[in-house]
Amino acid sequence: MLDPDLTAQLRAIVGASHYRDDKEALIAHSYDGTPMLQALPDGVIYPESTEQVSAIMKALSFYKVPLVSRGSGSNLCGGTVPIQGGVVMVMHRMNRLLELDMDNLTATVQPGMITADFIHHIESLGLFYPPDPSSMRISTIGGNIAECSGGLRGLKYGTTKDYVIGLHAVLASGEIIRTGGKLMKDVAGYDLTKLLIGSEGTLAIITEATLKLIPPPKSKMTMLVMYQDLYAAARTVSAIIESKIIPATLEFMDNPTIRVVDDFAKLGLPLDMEAILLIEQDGDPETVARDIEQIRQICIREQADTIQVAATREEAERLLTARRSAFTALARLRPTTILEDATVPRSKIADMVRRINEISTKYNVMIATFGHAGDGNLHPTATTDARDVEEIHRVEQAFEEIFAAALELGGTITGEHGVGVVKAPFLEWKIGNTGISLMKGIKKAFDPDNLLNPGKMFAKETRKRVVIQYE
Amino acid sequence: MLDPDLTAQLRAIVGASHYRDDKEALIAHSYDGTPMLQALPDGVIYPESTEQVSAIMKALSFYKVPLVSRGSGSNLCGGTVPIQGGVVMVMHRMNRLLELDMDNLTATVQPGMITADFIHHIESLGLFYPPDPSSMRISTIGGNIAECSGGLRGLKYGTTKDYVIGLHAVLASGEIIRTGGKLMKDVAGYDLTKLLIGSEGTLAIITEATLKLIPPPKSKMTMLVMYQDLYAAARTVSAIIESKIIPATLEFMDNPTIRVVDDFAKLGLPLDMEAILLIEQDGDPETVARDIEQIRQICIREQADTIQVAATREEAERLLTARRSAFTALARLRPTTILEDATVPRSKIADMVRRINEISTKYNVMIATFGHAGDGNLHPTATTDARDVEEIHRVEQAFEEIFAAALELGGTITGEHGVGVVKAPFLEWKIGNTGISLMKGIKKAFDPDNLLNPGKMFAKETRKRVVIQYE
Repeated sequence: MLDPDLTAQLRAIVGASHYRDDKEALIAHSYDGTPMLQALPDGVIYPESTEQVSAIMKALSFYKVPLVSRGSGSNLCGGTVPIQGGVVMVMHRMNRLLELDMDNLTATVQPGMITADFIHHIESLGLFYPPDPSSMRISTIGGNIAECSGGLRGLKYGTTKDYVIGLHAVLASGEIIRTGGKLMKDVAGYDLTKLLIGSEGTLAIITEATLKLIPPPKSKMTMLVMYQDLYAAARTVSAIIESKIIPATLEFMDNPTIRVVDDFAKLGLPLDMEAILLIEQDGDPETVARDIEQIRQICIREQADTIQVAATREEAERLLTARRSAFTALARLRPTTILEDATVPRSKIADMVRRINEISTKYNVMIATFGHAGDGNLHPTATTDARDVEEIHRVEQAFEEIFAAALELGGTITGEHGVGVVKAPFLEWKIGNTGISLMKGIKKAFDPDNLLNPGKMFAKETRKRVVIQYE
Repeated sequence: MLDPDLTAQLRAIVGASHYRDDKEALIAHSYDGTPMLQALPDGVIYPESTEQVSAIMKALSFYKVPLVSRGSGSNLCGGTVPIQGGVVMVMHRMNRLLELDMDNLTATVQPGMITADFIHHIESLGLFYPPDPSSMRISTIGGNIAECSGGLRGLKYGTTKDYVIGLHAVLASGEIIRTGGKLMKDVAGYDLTKLLIGSEGTLAIITEATLKLIPPPKSKMTMLVMYQDLYAAARTVSAIIESKIIPATLEFMDNPTIRVVDDFAKLGLPLDMEAILLIEQDGDPETVARDIEQIRQICIREQADTIQVAATREEAERLLTARRSAFTALARLRPTTILEDATVPRSKIADMVRRINEISTKYNVMIATFGHAGDGNLHPTATTDARDVEEIHRVEQAFEEIFAAALELGGTITGEHGVGVVKAPFLEWKIGNTGISLMKGIKKAFDPDNLLNPGKMFAKETRKRVVIQYE
């Protein structure tokens, strides 16, 4: 329960209808896209300007009440669950495109703008904003920045961090900072813009972002390639990159995913294939045609079973359906779907998929793997049942071992989903005790009273690391 | 004078011949590429491994002796002048290419490797590392990372920060940290890799870097375009970008630069031109030809006086000579050359050049301007004489006003040269008092005793800001 003086102040700042503490509002903001995590906030607030956010933080910091800022809550790491209570700040009213600067090819947006709305608007003007997280139809630009979202186009075009060049943000104290600008180069001090990207709402509340736009590719081609051998698919990925082609998209699905997707989408996929690669190239038409032909030759050399190159955009959409429906198809199998994103150097993809399969057998859990092969960012996905405590325990053990395997292969515990609550116990495995201390020091410089999204990123206790025996 | 016990320890760590405190060594490391700045260190040390760097820092931190790490000292912000004495650490012995990973398209290098040596080696293997600072023939990769160096290819390809994906670094305490990896995506905690890039040796000593490589462009075309009207040149820059072409290089020289360059290189440039643009495009041959033709049409539309498109690589080299010799040509005019890098949104280039010219007239100093028009990164360059105290004072006043003008136009005080000593008094103008506090907090988290490159980035006092009257 918050102090009535505080809630009175909050209502005064945003207007009575934009602060809620009725049960419906509290429950609706007690969870996010992450399974098996829920915690009630004490209030929910909907600001409409940077100044209101600043005033809210001044009030909250005076009362030392925590704040969790969020967009649509589509994250998968528990990043926006208010595990220490306090106020949830929903950015959906701050959803405007503030400026489109065609001279500098920049857009300035508020954080609550829906990613897909932004992308469609930008594309209708003949421009291109590449980050395309799978959640883009509901996720917000602010949420994408907080999590440093990736997507299917990450291999060629990079992720959110490569497109955010300026920020306005509010600190826990209520102070407003402005970083970067409409500048492609700026080395005035430490790079606070990049530091805030991916900081998961723990350092500051982003209230405005300047995004870099680029010219769109003029054409695109799509192909779907099937393999009876997992390593042949992985070799294809490496061979494409080694031949100095960087495809726009280079996606992977393993056999369990293929089976489930086909059952769901009735695509007539051959069920005995060990792997499918979905490959897209974009750019000038001559380049695209040449690259796709070269990729086709590589696939033949690596003994692909079937190679389909889409002749039309409609056919391409059909090929894309397989990859796009992976999560949905998996989610309908069992009551609970846990999607992870262990990431390895791309040369280690086959080793990693093999390890995942061994681990899922060892713990007798159903794990299907798909993901962004080109950048080694895999999504091992467990289908399970949150009500079955014993099974969930096995799933958790399996994922622990998967994280350890990713690190053994030179990878990381999360490529694009963030740490949040879910991966906090494993962060030290990646960055070490010294890395944790540095990050806590940074957190303290921004938020000395630990009011912004407390309990995230840093765990009370690091999980004991699984020792993996490689043969 | 350092404690003899400490110097004995340092000699024991690196071997007697790799620690020097003779006058020659001290004087040779008392300055860098920045004019009018000199301070003697107490010793100079040449480590050969991360472990030695760690042992050195343990010793120095015990005695609370400051350390300045450096490569070739080619920076222009006083970043490696040991203004508080202590030990200068020269990274030239740590100059090896540790690994070239063709599967993952990464190179792992030690910090002391010369940038051009690295680039040439990479190119001989058919790969591409785009950051190309003008100092690349003598600068080191470590120095480039510390300063987040840019270069001529920044517009299309980005700067050093876009290519560093993993680091090993030693903290002031001697602890070793490892950030990132051979990973295109990694969101495990705050982005320490990006934070260290451009931190100017104030947070940690970089001892190993993993760099992202990309496929090289297949062809390149070069053109030189002259204008009688500065604004026509600036409009051309904006029109090119607006037409959705991002050239590989889009460089600018103003009239004073043209005159000096022609006198130096005898290129027969017309001396009455207000501006020259040097434009290069690279990529697949069809794309390059199409882009260059479209750019040519834009130049005609914007009433360029002369347009030369190089027919051969030799002719292209000749056109490039004009821009490449700008600094050298200016440097021979007077005893002291001060090269700055105020940066503005690219739509503001003409306004900024006009302001620079007004300011140089106002203070009666010679300032020529050239630079990277495509990303708004200008290099106003004063030719002066360090022995003339009165004139130097006027030059300093002029630069103060130039920084203020850049900020008024939405720009920054430094685009690629760094803050160091020279721009420390102006950092607050860009990032505000709150920004300074955050950065000092970050510094404290990494280096609580302020031993790494002390006196840089943060000034004792912020200069009073010039108020500019715009008409």
